[in-house]
Amino acid sequence: MKVMILGIDGYLGWALALRLAADGHEVSGIDNLYTRKAVEEVGSTTALPISSPEERITAAKEVMGVDIRFYEGDITKYAFLQKTIRKENPEAIVHFAEQRSAPYSMIDVKHANYTLTNNLSGTVNLIYAVRKVDPRIHIVKMGTMGEFGTPKFDIPEAAFIDVSINGKEDRITVPKWGGSWYHWSKVHDTNNLLFANRLWGLTMTDIMQGPVYGSRIPEIKDPRLFTRLDFDEVWGTVLNRYCVEAVLGMPLTQYGQGGQTRAFLSLEDSVHSLSLLIDNPPEHGNYRVANQFTELYSVRQLAEMTKEIAKQLGINVQIKEFENPRVELEKHYYNPEIKVLPALGLTAPRRNIRDELKVMIRDVMENKERLEPYRGVIAPKTKWR
Amino acid sequence: MKVMILGIDGYLGWALALRLAADGHEVSGIDNLYTRKAVEEVGSTTALPISSPEERITAAKEVMGVDIRFYEGDITKYAFLQKTIRKENPEAIVHFAEQRSAPYSMIDVKHANYTLTNNLSGTVNLIYAVRKVDPRIHIVKMGTMGEFGTPKFDIPEAAFIDVSINGKEDRITVPKWGGSWYHWSKVHDTNNLLFANRLWGLTMTDIMQGPVYGSRIPEIKDPRLFTRLDFDEVWGTVLNRYCVEAVLGMPLTQYGQGGQTRAFLSLEDSVHSLSLLIDNPPEHGNYRVANQFTELYSVRQLAEMTKEIAKQLGINVQIKEFENPRVELEKHYYNPEIKVLPALGLTAPRRNIRDELKVMIRDVMENKERLEPYRGVIAPKTKWR
Repeated sequence: MKVMILGIDGYLGWALALRLAADGHEVSGIDNLYTRKAVEEVGSTTALPISSPEERITAAKEVMGVDIRFYEGDITKYAFLQKTIRKENPEAIVHFAEQRSAPYSMIDVKHANYTLTNNLSGTVNLIYAVRKVDPRIHIVKMGTMGEFGTPKFDIPEAAFIDVSINGKEDRITVPKWGGSWYHWSKVHDTNNLLFANRLWGLTMTDIMQGPVYGSRIPEIKDPRLFTRLDFDEVWGTVLNRYCVEAVLGMPLTQYGQGGQTRAFLSLEDSVHSLSLLIDNPPEHGNYRVANQFTELYSVRQLAEMTKEIAKQLGINVQIKEFENPRVELEKHYYNPEIKVLPALGLTAPRRNIRDELKVMIRDVMENKERLEPYRGVIAPKTKWR
Repeated sequence: MKVMILGIDGYLGWALALRLAADGHEVSGIDNLYTRKAVEEVGSTTALPISSPEERITAAKEVMGVDIRFYEGDITKYAFLQKTIRKENPEAIVHFAEQRSAPYSMIDVKHANYTLTNNLSGTVNLIYAVRKVDPRIHIVKMGTMGEFGTPKFDIPEAAFIDVSINGKEDRITVPKWGGSWYHWSKVHDTNNLLFANRLWGLTMTDIMQGPVYGSRIPEIKDPRLFTRLDFDEVWGTVLNRYCVEAVLGMPLTQYGQGGQTRAFLSLEDSVHSLSLLIDNPPEHGNYRVANQFTELYSVRQLAEMTKEIAKQLGINVQIKEFENPRVELEKHYYNPEIKVLPALGLTAPRRNIRDELKVMIRDVMENKERLEPYRGVIAPKTKWR
């Protein structure tokens, strides 16, 4: 199958490109390399060194014998996006090309506006480009479990849901509540995609994914093939951040009491899930929502697990409660449905989280010296209030 | 009171400026004059000639003895917005400065993106500027009844509502469904405003207003004080469009079967309602939702009324069913709550719709010859599908 990845240079984008290429798909991708610059902007770097897009593609050719086509460019430029899609003529387009950090969106008005306008424009451009070039292209859009917030109802895997409001029955879009401008940009995207689906019958999978952890998939057989791994307070998701903290001998930065429960998955499970969704598109014209995760943990449980695994590797770490920079409940109900991916074959986590932690900590240990100068960018500084 | 109007050059913006100034408020305003250009862009014009911002302000001074301060500029430029708010130091800011046409937003990808990014950026800038300059400023934001779509439940006047979902009780944001990118931009705005209110305690009134009709308020005592009146398929709201069609002897453009029921109000009732909301702000830190309308009509009823009044003025017009360019239900339940404005004193329509139709048709008749060349821009051309 011909698959195009928007945001191919990112953490998931590059890993997915390797997986799809290894599976025999014809892979192309677009990236404006913004994340590389924006991580530098906050004074940080990737925990594992990554190659340039050109070096990556050369390495993929040499190591795996695959040809991945890379286009540097910005999908908020409509003409460029449409032209590139027309040239590649893919059957599926995976859309990761959005600003993906909640703290980054909360830095100030400039970052708030960048996040909202960049993310909404890219998605609207994709909608129109697909409608124009070939309305049968399957749009696989990365959203986040964070769009749901922490509701008291069971989180469904659906675009619409039946409700009762003051004695009247109606079918409404699944209620959402964003915890940052980033999360709201994803909620707005979902509404925009759903509107386009109803109006023009475009075929879509809207993925609600939990935070991803891990540094490896089997295809990463050469250091030039590493995908980025962020750990700072702006770009690092919680478990990846904990691992770097452990390696640097810093206390694990648990936000508040740590009862925040989220739906996690490994990098391997993320690319595997994405492959399943790409290989098994919905019927033409359908809008499919897939919740994508394998396990539920509180951020305190993750800190305790990191401490345990670090100890096995000879590192003693402390867990420290930091004043929560975010506005979020630290104790709440959380029950997301997950049926779509299991029905396609995602039966259980393909990686044990403790094993993955060990792999990740070892990968980061090899970079300990390189990461020493970045100690200052890990503790939470970007505050919601 | 010091009141600043964003979008002071528009249909409602200018009329409200006159009303507030006449009531003794100190009025300033910002406008980028985009609507003037965008109406020209679609080959149209205002049905009643309007003066330049400078001439309007001079006329207001001469005729009413009031000083209105005008700043030409774009609120999507944050530094300009913040500086102007700091200079004026208003107690309330009324925000009309958005792209306000549903068909305009549906022309193509460029117009879709302009609508979404312009509207969201302006509102986010306003949020941050108020937070920075003085968080006590009352933000009065113009939304639309169209944000609700046509639900089967009674439309509440609230940000949140209690629901039952699969046996679980929760409080969610009031369900919305936009019928165009324009409508979605307003829905996204509402979510963004509500998020900012919860996070930073800003004081807000989010107005859900129905379509406004009419050419006059008592303050318009001089032709130089006219506010714009749009009638083309892109910019004209339904009743204003019907009046121009009647005057030009064209069939009234009823979209589809005409059962679409909406919540209407006259220009006089709109500025009166806005005055009531400005003069009676919510408690500091509160988020108030006000549904703003006086009467419910289907677009068919409005066509019949226009036909009746035109006949009294010696004009015979036909009603013609046009293929509906929009995607909307033409027969539906519609029961919006309205309590906030009546509690502040909006007891009944201050204008009889038939009297207003007469006034409007007479105003347009004086411009008949001027409008002849614009016959081609009235029938629906911008199609949703």
